[in-house]
Amino acid sequence: MSTILFTHIRQLVNTREDSPLLKGAALANLPCIQEAFLLVEDGVIAEYGAMHDLELLVPQLPREVADAAGSMVLPAWCDSHTHLVFARSREEEFVCKLKGMSYAEIAAQGGGILHSAGVLNDYTEDTLFTLAWARLQELSALGTGAIEIKSGYGLTVDGELKMLRVIKRLKERSNLQIRATFLGAHAYPERYKDDHAAYLDLIIHEMLPIIGREKLADYIDVFCEEGFFSPEEMEIVCTAGMQYGLRPKLHVNQLNSIGGIRSGLRMNALSLDHLETLTENDIADLSFAAAQPGAPVCTLLPTAAFFLRMPYQPARALIDAGTAIALASDFNPGSSPSGNMNFVVSLSCIGMKLLPEEAINAATLNGAHAMGAGDLVGSITVGKKANLIFTRPVPSLAWLPYAFGTNCISRVMINGEWVSR
Amino acid sequence: MSTILFTHIRQLVNTREDSPLLKGAALANLPCIQEAFLLVEDGVIAEYGAMHDLELLVPQLPREVADAAGSMVLPAWCDSHTHLVFARSREEEFVCKLKGMSYAEIAAQGGGILHSAGVLNDYTEDTLFTLAWARLQELSALGTGAIEIKSGYGLTVDGELKMLRVIKRLKERSNLQIRATFLGAHAYPERYKDDHAAYLDLIIHEMLPIIGREKLADYIDVFCEEGFFSPEEMEIVCTAGMQYGLRPKLHVNQLNSIGGIRSGLRMNALSLDHLETLTENDIADLSFAAAQPGAPVCTLLPTAAFFLRMPYQPARALIDAGTAIALASDFNPGSSPSGNMNFVVSLSCIGMKLLPEEAINAATLNGAHAMGAGDLVGSITVGKKANLIFTRPVPSLAWLPYAFGTNCISRVMINGEWVSR
Repeated sequence: MSTILFTHIRQLVNTREDSPLLKGAALANLPCIQEAFLLVEDGVIAEYGAMHDLELLVPQLPREVADAAGSMVLPAWCDSHTHLVFARSREEEFVCKLKGMSYAEIAAQGGGILHSAGVLNDYTEDTLFTLAWARLQELSALGTGAIEIKSGYGLTVDGELKMLRVIKRLKERSNLQIRATFLGAHAYPERYKDDHAAYLDLIIHEMLPIIGREKLADYIDVFCEEGFFSPEEMEIVCTAGMQYGLRPKLHVNQLNSIGGIRSGLRMNALSLDHLETLTENDIADLSFAAAQPGAPVCTLLPTAAFFLRMPYQPARALIDAGTAIALASDFNPGSSPSGNMNFVVSLSCIGMKLLPEEAINAATLNGAHAMGAGDLVGSITVGKKANLIFTRPVPSLAWLPYAFGTNCISRVMINGEWVSR
Repeated sequence: MSTILFTHIRQLVNTREDSPLLKGAALANLPCIQEAFLLVEDGVIAEYGAMHDLELLVPQLPREVADAAGSMVLPAWCDSHTHLVFARSREEEFVCKLKGMSYAEIAAQGGGILHSAGVLNDYTEDTLFTLAWARLQELSALGTGAIEIKSGYGLTVDGELKMLRVIKRLKERSNLQIRATFLGAHAYPERYKDDHAAYLDLIIHEMLPIIGREKLADYIDVFCEEGFFSPEEMEIVCTAGMQYGLRPKLHVNQLNSIGGIRSGLRMNALSLDHLETLTENDIADLSFAAAQPGAPVCTLLPTAAFFLRMPYQPARALIDAGTAIALASDFNPGSSPSGNMNFVVSLSCIGMKLLPEEAINAATLNGAHAMGAGDLVGSITVGKKANLIFTRPVPSLAWLPYAFGTNCISRVMINGEWVSR
């Protein structure tokens, strides 16, 4: 049994006996212990408390005791919305957009999601795994301890299965908490542009049965936007997915409000993601749902808005409406080419006016809930994974989002093991 | 004599025989050599070229040859506008602003520039030096090889001199190119609020003579904004400063357009900085001046606009008007608590729509000119300081600003010496 005791932690952040989904005003409540200790046993948080209670709570000190003086210790980030598996970056599109080219023009040139799909289908599973693995190592060094990863750059039976198998291998090899989401309904491939029914058939009758049989996914996602999937089409896909135990985690209301939220609520979605474009009715619907049992998490992706020069998600209005918001990176090569959750947290304060405490809760405990891992990660709780961020000596907790250009992390521990830098 | 030859550089960036200030469309021209070598002798760039010319240009190989395979090599960043010397961070103000407090309310509570001044006057020169030194080390590891640093948090004779002496010690001890700017006219101290003439007298008759005698500054800056210094007051201060050889480098048009630009042009300012708020007449004035000899550099500070949630500077309009723009960090504890020039470059593309080539030129060669160091740093030019950024293996040059959350730097060399990480 490997045991390590950290002493003299300057501030132990997000210490909780239980792990509720944090709605509305509760998001600002970030329990912390100043001058604390933390005991890790076999990769799990075994005990924690104030230093003056150490003798009481840990009567027999383990052999390995580490002075954490100067460090704050936070639960590692839980990034509940990413597209980590992709073939290659798309900076040439970024430059085209800087030069004034529209999304439609870029798509006409073979850019966008279909571009990523075209390239991915040419890559082997091994190559995709190697690329994704390297990205995962970079992100864990940046403090990410749990991550959701979507398919959706295959858009063929082989391509989607290949992506999900890459995610499965990441799960098996990594000690991060990983959840897989099937996003076959990311865009209509060119050949199905005028025959949506045929592509829906492919998803339902060709992809989902194999995904279900091989247990390749935990959730199902649909890109519900004008020009992509309608709410009705989304319901068809999700209904089929739910028969294989895949709960919906949905992309809605990034570019327009076409009914995706109501549809998602009806299907008991685990999370509703993006939400840049909300009508008053949408917020009222989310507010009503937030008061019910099994309320969805509203997952906000500020770096996508930042990179696309769109207005940020109305985080404060959502908090005022009593909803549970989470923060995620949306890491993908087209609209958010970064999975750095430290910057997501900072940007959520600078751009969306979250308080530092709200941002940290949204990127840890609520993020964990948004990927169905609220009982395993996301807070300093006895029995949870020892997924921990140790900061450099920083003046205060608020300094983390304030110093937006500084890497404040000293070390990261995942499942009780140090991440190499 | 210490000599090192770097071979197989994937892309050597901003290679120039001479070092012109880049105006208008010239900013997009970023000369590069693919598959290059670079010879460094005694901290200076001694030769460079394509690998296939190596034998011709370096007939006798030095003992130390390093394969740079995979790296791009850029001139280190030239950050021509910072307030690196300060006593402490002001994240509590950041939180107050998130909670809706106005700048005026924060100032009334003793926040803002006067807060920084109050605190700084309580710190010893040694402490300020130690703090600034640590920041400088962090920035050089992030690729900054030249930096301008302002006073302006003293606002007393002792305080301003103390800051300038700290900068002088930084100059003496660091191998970065450092330029000092006297910014006694940063704000009117409380006791001079209703007696501007008396504070101007203090600057002119108490501060400047000592600064001149002890050669404590290279430039003079004035905060020309409503509620701070009027263009007339700025001219009084600058005229006095110029008698001690201090050329103006001026803060104008961040919050309002009150004539600072015309005034600065009349005084032959080296640079006009901020420029968030420009009228058509301002742009026309800058355009006219750009066509004259000794045109000023327009220094843009996108992270300040980002952190204050203001519209970004109209970089494209300024380029179209033929001006020479530079990028700088404005690193300071109130409005831009980051000196990370990699993010400044990225943000200038994402937020201000600069092309990657324009952003790199603006943050290197034009930045060097904006601090009077265009002949020493800012490009890969024989005879210039070996201030170099070696990137990690990255897919392309455009990937640097595109991957906004990733630290792309592998190693940094300043004056031919490696920066420790």
